[in-house]
Amino acid sequence: MARLDFPEEIKNLIDTLKKLPGIGPKGAERVAVWLINQDREFASLLSKVVEDSVQLIGACEICGFFKSHEKGCFLCDDFGRDGSVICVVEQPTDVIALEKTGAFKGTYHCLGGKIAPLDNIGPEDLRVGSLISRIEGSDFGEIILGVGSDVEGEATANYLADLIIEKGLKIDITRLAQGLPAGGGLENADELTLYRALDGRRKV
Amino acid sequence: MARLDFPEEIKNLIDTLKKLPGIGPKGAERVAVWLINQDREFASLLSKVVEDSVQLIGACEICGFFKSHEKGCFLCDDFGRDGSVICVVEQPTDVIALEKTGAFKGTYHCLGGKIAPLDNIGPEDLRVGSLISRIEGSDFGEIILGVGSDVEGEATANYLADLIIEKGLKIDITRLAQGLPAGGGLENADELTLYRALDGRRKV
Repeated sequence: MARLDFPEEIKNLIDTLKKLPGIGPKGAERVAVWLINQDREFASLLSKVVEDSVQLIGACEICGFFKSHEKGCFLCDDFGRDGSVICVVEQPTDVIALEKTGAFKGTYHCLGGKIAPLDNIGPEDLRVGSLISRIEGSDFGEIILGVGSDVEGEATANYLADLIIEKGLKIDITRLAQGLPAGGGLENADELTLYRALDGRRKV
Repeated sequence: MARLDFPEEIKNLIDTLKKLPGIGPKGAERVAVWLINQDREFASLLSKVVEDSVQLIGACEICGFFKSHEKGCFLCDDFGRDGSVICVVEQPTDVIALEKTGAFKGTYHCLGGKIAPLDNIGPEDLRVGSLISRIEGSDFGEIILGVGSDVEGEATANYLADLIIEKGLKIDITRLAQGLPAGGGLENADELTLYRALDGRRKV
């Protein structure tokens, strides 16, 4: 009598699901068993939505934002944006988060990640070349380094600032303010956050 | 100028991914953006694997384990198993976990979940009817209630035990032992675990 194990088809499904970000072996098993227990329509729907979205939408080679293979880039083809300032972010989701604030009308550039030596991600894996080309080919007066405030974000911001200065590009380089998050008391802030909040204090 | 937002196709993908267990709104966005950034082959593969596995494999109506729509149930059609004892578990994954121990040669019954009033899951949503039919139609000498030791698991075990007694079925009812997990020191165990370990102590 052989020990019961997952059927090959389910093993295959689990192995594929495990490759998705944020889904571990246990999570993949859970999703697989859940899918099997649903009506077949849901799996067909999921399957179709995954296939369709990737066939229809991709990453723009220039700015890294979403691009419809049929209708063009949602960002590059948006001619109403302020062409004097460009904000560099890690992912397209960051663009949407910034857009929700309503505080920025300029254009964006999505790097597609951040410099992370531990994950073997260097500048050559990011959209750095097309960023430099865009700065060289346009009249941006300011570049906002809108990357995260973690170690990799800092490293990416420093790398980009050095590169822009090294290339002698005439553009103001700014960085998002760091300090207390909205609604946060001092007792909940870590030392580094407080240090930066002090360091970046502004006259009222 | 409209604010940039996810294209409709991506919104659709995120909404569908959010329905999967253990994937929240942020996780769904992350998976969607990650999929878009992969080569199209991966999305096609994922799409195909999801579709195929659910077309080929389903849940057996009788025992709840995986069933090939073509070749039949992997459990019900496994005639080499010990027919004197049946172990009731929540999910097919629990069967595989128990099989890995090699300590059990009997047959299984997957309820498909546990009684959880807060999630609106009652006995009528589980494979309880087919469990009773299986006990009535076979010569099992023992039923092991192999459900979890959380509140819902306890409630499910109590419900099943009461039902079996009420129906006057001649079968020994047992429950998995509760106590210290392997490799765990007493200082790491919570009060309830220690209480149950004391309560269930065995003569050496």
